Amino acid sequence: MSTAGQVIKCKAAVAWESGKPLSIEEVEVAPPQKNEVRIKILFTSLCHTDVYFWDAKGQNPMFPRILGHEAGGIVESVGEGVTDLKVGDHVLPIFTGECKECAHCLSEESNMCDLLRINTDRGEMIHDGKSRFSINGKPIYHFLGTSTFSEYTVVHVGQVAKINPEAPLDKVCVLSCGMSTGFGATVNVAKPKKGQSVAIFGLGAVGLAAAEGARVSGASRIIGVDLNPSRFEQAKKFGVTEFVNPKDHDKPVQEVIAEMTGGGVDRSVECTGSIQAMISAFECVHDGWGVAVLVGVPNKDDAFKTHPVNLLNERTLKGTFFGNYKPRTDIPAVVEKYMNKELELDKFITHSVPFSEINKAFELMLAGEGLRCMIRMDA
Amino acid sequence: MSTAGQVIKCKAAVAWESGKPLSIEEVEVAPPQKNEVRIKILFTSLCHTDVYFWDAKGQNPMFPRILGHEAGGIVESVGEGVTDLKVGDHVLPIFTGECKECAHCLSEESNMCDLLRINTDRGEMIHDGKSRFSINGKPIYHFLGTSTFSEYTVVHVGQVAKINPEAPLDKVCVLSCGMSTGFGATVNVAKPKKGQSVAIFGLGAVGLAAAEGARVSGASRIIGVDLNPSRFEQAKKFGVTEFVNPKDHDKPVQEVIAEMTGGGVDRSVECTGSIQAMISAFECVHDGWGVAVLVGVPNKDDAFKTHPVNLLNERTLKGTFFGNYKPRTDIPAVVEKYMNKELELDKFITHSVPFSEINKAFELMLAGEGLRCMIRMDA
Repeated sequence: MSTAGQVIKCKAAVAWESGKPLSIEEVEVAPPQKNEVRIKILFTSLCHTDVYFWDAKGQNPMFPRILGHEAGGIVESVGEGVTDLKVGDHVLPIFTGECKECAHCLSEESNMCDLLRINTDRGEMIHDGKSRFSINGKPIYHFLGTSTFSEYTVVHVGQVAKINPEAPLDKVCVLSCGMSTGFGATVNVAKPKKGQSVAIFGLGAVGLAAAEGARVSGASRIIGVDLNPSRFEQAKKFGVTEFVNPKDHDKPVQEVIAEMTGGGVDRSVECTGSIQAMISAFECVHDGWGVAVLVGVPNKDDAFKTHPVNLLNERTLKGTFFGNYKPRTDIPAVVEKYMNKELELDKFITHSVPFSEINKAFELMLAGEGLRCMIRMDA
Repeated sequence: MSTAGQVIKCKAAVAWESGKPLSIEEVEVAPPQKNEVRIKILFTSLCHTDVYFWDAKGQNPMFPRILGHEAGGIVESVGEGVTDLKVGDHVLPIFTGECKECAHCLSEESNMCDLLRINTDRGEMIHDGKSRFSINGKPIYHFLGTSTFSEYTVVHVGQVAKINPEAPLDKVCVLSCGMSTGFGATVNVAKPKKGQSVAIFGLGAVGLAAAEGARVSGASRIIGVDLNPSRFEQAKKFGVTEFVNPKDHDKPVQEVIAEMTGGGVDRSVECTGSIQAMISAFECVHDGWGVAVLVGVPNKDDAFKTHPVNLLNERTLKGTFFGNYKPRTDIPAVVEKYMNKELELDKFITHSVPFSEINKAFELMLAGEGLRCMIRMDA
């Protein structure tokens, strides 16, 4: 029996207050409205951003809320005006959107849609300013327009990438956020040429996805920089060839890298969000042609600071957001790269838990264990 | 009678001490040694860099010295090993070189030659560490390897661009430095697309050359930013369509420009060297796709400072040196652009003096009058 147009009762993991374990509850999920789709989530994984807003330190706390934004699922029903998607489509919901009409969507270079750009302070749907989730009539806030820690969720059509139905959702699910962010930072923005050297700052999941981008680009040397030496062993699987721990040196890491490489690496990608790492990542690229790409999100009060001569010597500094991918236009092709074995994803998925044990995924991340924990909704 | 292999006695304008008028003297110019050529200078123009090192505030003073680096001339003789140039070739000496062998010269992206990169502290020729200029046996320092304030000068072959002999040297001479620096910053680095908006910070000669690059690129709006409102009238000839004086506003000029342009210009080029202008030039470009290019040379202790979110919102910050042109490979083609009327140069040459009155050129520049003063060596 079709559930289209009906309220669906299903399980969701609700964050009732900051830093407290999520609680699996029965929620009501209203039907999708104009330009929305309702998606049956099959797999979702945990990203640092979920933990950050669950912890809610330094942001506007917004509870109760259904977190989650890295996920894969199947369209259950579509709202008015939706023509690009139909029931049964395999999709990845994305935390940032693509309206296809604004100046950013029309630009070849930008993916920062004016209408659907990431908004961490929005807890309702754009269409009517209301939540589609409720418990006993009490609304539950959305998160990033995705809220994938629920068996069913409602998402704006502009935030949904329609992908190859043969792609395994328990793998390509990680392309919803972290892996695309890191991989795209390298292949779309840093763009190393075959044989060039690349430094990756931060060997967490996003940094390793950036390393994967360097590996796929044919980089000759991939230098991983991290304060945690235990990460190097794992990083080798992602093509990282050398490791530098800034703690092991009494000079700035940019100088260490310049010495290792005869003047600097060709490209660097910063995936920590530490302002000092950002500065080092910029200053460690070679003059004349070096390109540094910033991915990590800094603290509010940080200032990026460098001597302008570092720029005048023909270095380039760029930032990126979601790997410069347009969610609807570009992500399906990244999924194809995985299908064609050009891009490896399985190695990012180090853990797996049933939905009922979602709090274990939080524990693993807080302990710094593994890269991605896959949460199986049907289990 | 050939002068090849002989010492040539000729006139040169010698800077005996910092900030004092140049003195026209008879100097002896030794024959070119290995990989050097001796050039008869026909025209030379005055650039701020000459004045800066003549004034010698904050640098290593090096006197007596023959300044001058924007010039056009004809090869008088060539030293051992010179195969690319022959007697009679029309050439522009360039303050920075291209050895064609180092990593920078082999890179498609860099023009910062390891061997012949600008070195303001070098007063002798690379080959033997000696000067080719002397008065009564006392050596006179070279400047930037060019020293064009002399009827004859000796230059490393890697610093000489061989150009179309039909090009008028009294015009294309300005491509030796300033005009190529500004024009190249726009067309090679900022690369505005047809119809895009460009902000130019600083409406001196280099800034106006950057504006000329924007005009040639088909920019729809060229916004000039300068603290001196009298510069706007002249700037209109260079395609500048709008003018902003930061002094007229009580908010940062980047905010003024963002309001004028619906979020920011597509490209900006900074040609003042003021650190505040650099920061404004970066922050005034549109998120998602904006590119800011730094040209102006800052003070030693300046720090470029911005909130990293300005980068993460997909802005690009680049610096450039000599418009990213490789002197020998690229400058001949820029001369051809002038010959084909794609690029206008005549409007940059606002004054002209005979060599005997070279100090007038300094006076004009110190008074901020005009753009380029052409110094005619044969007059």
